[in-house]
Amino acid sequence: MGFEIKAKIANFGGQLLKLEHQSTSTKTKMALNLFLPPIAIFHPSNKVPVLIFLSGLTCTGDNCAEKGFLQPHAAKHGIAVVYPDTSPRGAKINGEDDDWDFGSGAGFYVDATTEKWRNNYNMYTYINEELPSELFKQFEVLDSGRVGITGHSMGGHGALTIFLKNPDKYLSVSAFAPISNPINCPWGQKAFGGYFGEENKEKWAEHDATELVKVWEKNKTLEALIDVGTSDNFYKQGQLLPENFEKAAEDKRIEGIQVRYQEVSIPTSPSGTVRWVR
Amino acid sequence: MGFEIKAKIANFGGQLLKLEHQSTSTKTKMALNLFLPPIAIFHPSNKVPVLIFLSGLTCTGDNCAEKGFLQPHAAKHGIAVVYPDTSPRGAKINGEDDDWDFGSGAGFYVDATTEKWRNNYNMYTYINEELPSELFKQFEVLDSGRVGITGHSMGGHGALTIFLKNPDKYLSVSAFAPISNPINCPWGQKAFGGYFGEENKEKWAEHDATELVKVWEKNKTLEALIDVGTSDNFYKQGQLLPENFEKAAEDKRIEGIQVRYQEVSIPTSPSGTVRWVR
Repeated sequence: MGFEIKAKIANFGGQLLKLEHQSTSTKTKMALNLFLPPIAIFHPSNKVPVLIFLSGLTCTGDNCAEKGFLQPHAAKHGIAVVYPDTSPRGAKINGEDDDWDFGSGAGFYVDATTEKWRNNYNMYTYINEELPSELFKQFEVLDSGRVGITGHSMGGHGALTIFLKNPDKYLSVSAFAPISNPINCPWGQKAFGGYFGEENKEKWAEHDATELVKVWEKNKTLEALIDVGTSDNFYKQGQLLPENFEKAAEDKRIEGIQVRYQEVSIPTSPSGTVRWVR
Repeated sequence: MGFEIKAKIANFGGQLLKLEHQSTSTKTKMALNLFLPPIAIFHPSNKVPVLIFLSGLTCTGDNCAEKGFLQPHAAKHGIAVVYPDTSPRGAKINGEDDDWDFGSGAGFYVDATTEKWRNNYNMYTYINEELPSELFKQFEVLDSGRVGITGHSMGGHGALTIFLKNPDKYLSVSAFAPISNPINCPWGQKAFGGYFGEENKEKWAEHDATELVKVWEKNKTLEALIDVGTSDNFYKQGQLLPENFEKAAEDKRIEGIQVRYQEVSIPTSPSGTVRWVR
């Protein structure tokens, strides 16, 4: 169904559109943000590439649109950015709002199979099929042939798995601090247990980036950029496990994956003390 | 009293410090953010200029530090940015948390005179005296001789009034969508009525930017930059009244004030329809 444009906000020379539509995948109303770069507005006959940014636990499509700092770069390079929500909202499922890491705000970009969740929690189909298809219908300026996917944390998991399952559909994949091996971390185990059931381990593997690399064609290049801060508490707690993803790729001699571990160093003066703090 | 550094966050090549200290002005613990540009960290012997950013109603020092997009520019130009809170917190005054536009989150950068509020609600002294003085003591890299002040909405009111009352203390003043004539708008009337009492109109005028322009020296330049979006609902509702501020300056032949009214125009195709939306 068509998108209702709730607001148009001037943004780095382009526009941030606050959109809402009724989703057939989730059977709920879904809100999202769409950033159109200046070129899409002033030269709409040229189609622009599209980057889908998937957010992490507890987020809506607003968080990164407000403070992710992508838009000035997207404006400069002429890229549209789509910021979807992270789950259905108001599906009226008992307990859906009880936990911050399961249910609303935590859809994990899967199609649930358990009785309780499968009617609404279909974020995989929503992100991979329904949402882009509806956007391309209504916004002719978006180029359906040039789509990239990225995200943060749970959204990084979403970007990696959606790309790995549909490599011909996306021209690029990248992720900030992605949950890279959900079947082996507490967040993923809780989510997959709830959405797929504890016993359905085959289904779990279908939505695990590390497991998907294990079934990626041997020696076939996989271009993916991952960025992880080593002081990130969730990294330190073992929720992200990018090393497992890297190792799976190495074992299959898959090239093209770049994992950047960002160290945060606190600069010190030559004498070893932080001079600007007394 | 000294600041406790709760966190250091890598930020556009510099660092965002989450600070906390016990304030003698508000008699509460106060949190704030301090952005140090790269040059302050890597060449700490060169002092850097300081911009104080005062936030609006409901905000803490976090809002603009997270999504105001000042840091990349401050990093490039070598400016430190201070993001204070907008009021005392947890002063245990009956009703302080009841309203979003009065009490906590709404200190209005004044020193209250009414019995109920005057013990804690001294944001004028806190921002104009205590906070910078304490910062200069602890962070030697900050240049106390080069301080600018700016802000948004209620914080724009704060920046304008604090500058107008202390023009020799600040090298620059600017404001986004400032409350420019609080004694004539509902927000200001509610706040000043509460903090100064309904009858104390002389005190009201002392913290009203438009009234302060009326007592500014005739013909003396007043360099101030104000930016207002004409689609801003609070502007349309008459909460900001920048025209009154401008008129007061014109009446006294004061030059140097620049008010930029930003129109948000929705671009249309040559045929008059928005082409990129079907």
